[in-house]
Amino acid sequence: MKTYLDCIPCFMEQTLRAGRVSGLDDAKIKKLLDEVGGMIKDLPVESSPPATGDFIYGKIREVSGVADPYKEIKKETINEAITLYPELKKTVEQSEDRLLTAIRIAIAGNVIDFGVNHKFNISEDVQTILNQHFGIFHYKEFQESLKNAESVLYLGDNSGESVFDKLLIEELGKPVTYVVRDVPVINDVTMQDAIDSGLDTVAKLVSSGSSAPAIIPDRCSREFQDLFNNADIIISKGQGNYEGLSGINKPIFFLLKAKCHVLAGDLGVEKGDIVLASSIIHNG
Amino acid sequence: MKTYLDCIPCFMEQTLRAGRVSGLDDAKIKKLLDEVGGMIKDLPVESSPPATGDFIYGKIREVSGVADPYKEIKKETINEAITLYPELKKTVEQSEDRLLTAIRIAIAGNVIDFGVNHKFNISEDVQTILNQHFGIFHYKEFQESLKNAESVLYLGDNSGESVFDKLLIEELGKPVTYVVRDVPVINDVTMQDAIDSGLDTVAKLVSSGSSAPAIIPDRCSREFQDLFNNADIIISKGQGNYEGLSGINKPIFFLLKAKCHVLAGDLGVEKGDIVLASSIIHNG
Repeated sequence: MKTYLDCIPCFMEQTLRAGRVSGLDDAKIKKLLDEVGGMIKDLPVESSPPATGDFIYGKIREVSGVADPYKEIKKETINEAITLYPELKKTVEQSEDRLLTAIRIAIAGNVIDFGVNHKFNISEDVQTILNQHFGIFHYKEFQESLKNAESVLYLGDNSGESVFDKLLIEELGKPVTYVVRDVPVINDVTMQDAIDSGLDTVAKLVSSGSSAPAIIPDRCSREFQDLFNNADIIISKGQGNYEGLSGINKPIFFLLKAKCHVLAGDLGVEKGDIVLASSIIHNG
Repeated sequence: MKTYLDCIPCFMEQTLRAGRVSGLDDAKIKKLLDEVGGMIKDLPVESSPPATGDFIYGKIREVSGVADPYKEIKKETINEAITLYPELKKTVEQSEDRLLTAIRIAIAGNVIDFGVNHKFNISEDVQTILNQHFGIFHYKEFQESLKNAESVLYLGDNSGESVFDKLLIEELGKPVTYVVRDVPVINDVTMQDAIDSGLDTVAKLVSSGSSAPAIIPDRCSREFQDLFNNADIIISKGQGNYEGLSGINKPIFFLLKAKCHVLAGDLGVEKGDIVLASSIIHNG
């Protein structure tokens, strides 16, 4: 997804919020805002929003000296999600369509996002999303693609959401490689977070090799690029990964909740909609 | 009021919104965002937000060549307010405390603001504000100050709101000088807007002599400064004027609705609160 004009004030908002979470004083946050503000003129609109996020969060790490400001928050949300896991597992097991229910739960986990929003209630949001209408619903294509696949490449998004991903992975019935961020960025899932979420018991864990808060293929490691280029089916979780991957003709299925009106507009859905979208159908 | 860090993303939001209202294409709006972004590093936090607004809206005029992008919107809101006037006049006349009811209505008019917000419903908001609790209520001091004043200096804010100001001016019982913006900026009230609102029949109209979207005294004309320095009582409408005037020890009464959490925090009230605040009491 290109950077829309509406993303630009949002970059400043994110800078401010992340600066505060990193415990920076006002003078240092002002310095960050100065840098991000000055960078806007050099920002090619063709670049995706997480490419700018990569710059912003890199700057924050540099100025703050704090490598993982969301460390405690991530632990809390992973633990909260783990507490919900047994009941959600039962929900999956008792449902008519286990795969679809697990998909809904995996999307519900996507509300745990400190980049776009910071207000959510996991258990309430799960209940809503279990019954919510899909804005885009390429479920048949997903089932078909999954059936024919030898293995699944699963692109993680946020910590906590990762526990919900486990539930979906357990329903896929195929070997899964789960991709995590190479370094901590916002509350995105890293190798350690994936292990804390119990994902090492259900999937092979691989780093993207990139510091960006999303999969932007040409910033990723050669190892990731090989996996990506040869994947039978790719499950991409969340807004950031959509922003980094939309427009690429690969068998990607985007699972997300559209949390801002810009991304919703790009997808052709309403803000708040849940989405299971095939990139191939979507790109026409 | 100083510029808070939270104001900085808001400046970018305002730039984007005003650029669109001015009918600029995306490339030109991007150019504006580049300039405003680059200006942040030179922004002294001691300067008030409308001082930055002055820069932003000046840039927009320069880039767009459109002197008054809100011209049509202003006309519509003035006409809508004029339609409501007879009923509101009756409300004032039938109320137990005419002055207070007129103050409430004048504050209700303050929701007509395209700078901070862009969603409001005048007649609904009036009904709410007629019954709303005040976050700050220096009414006794206002009555006392008004009683002892020979005349009133009234600092206008938005077009449309200006019609509601007329209702309050009619209840003051003193000669009033009504101050308008020198040039069109956002939907702020100019000389022509004040005349269209019927204010010339109840007050002497004077320009601030400044292009800022608020009264920032040292940017105003000598004529305004003389009026301001010698005023017995000053009624200051809206957020912008508060931002430009807070901290100044003059007999100013701020009438406004706190429309953003930054200003609400500065005043020590909740967002959404209505306020009748004496600057002298407030400055302690």
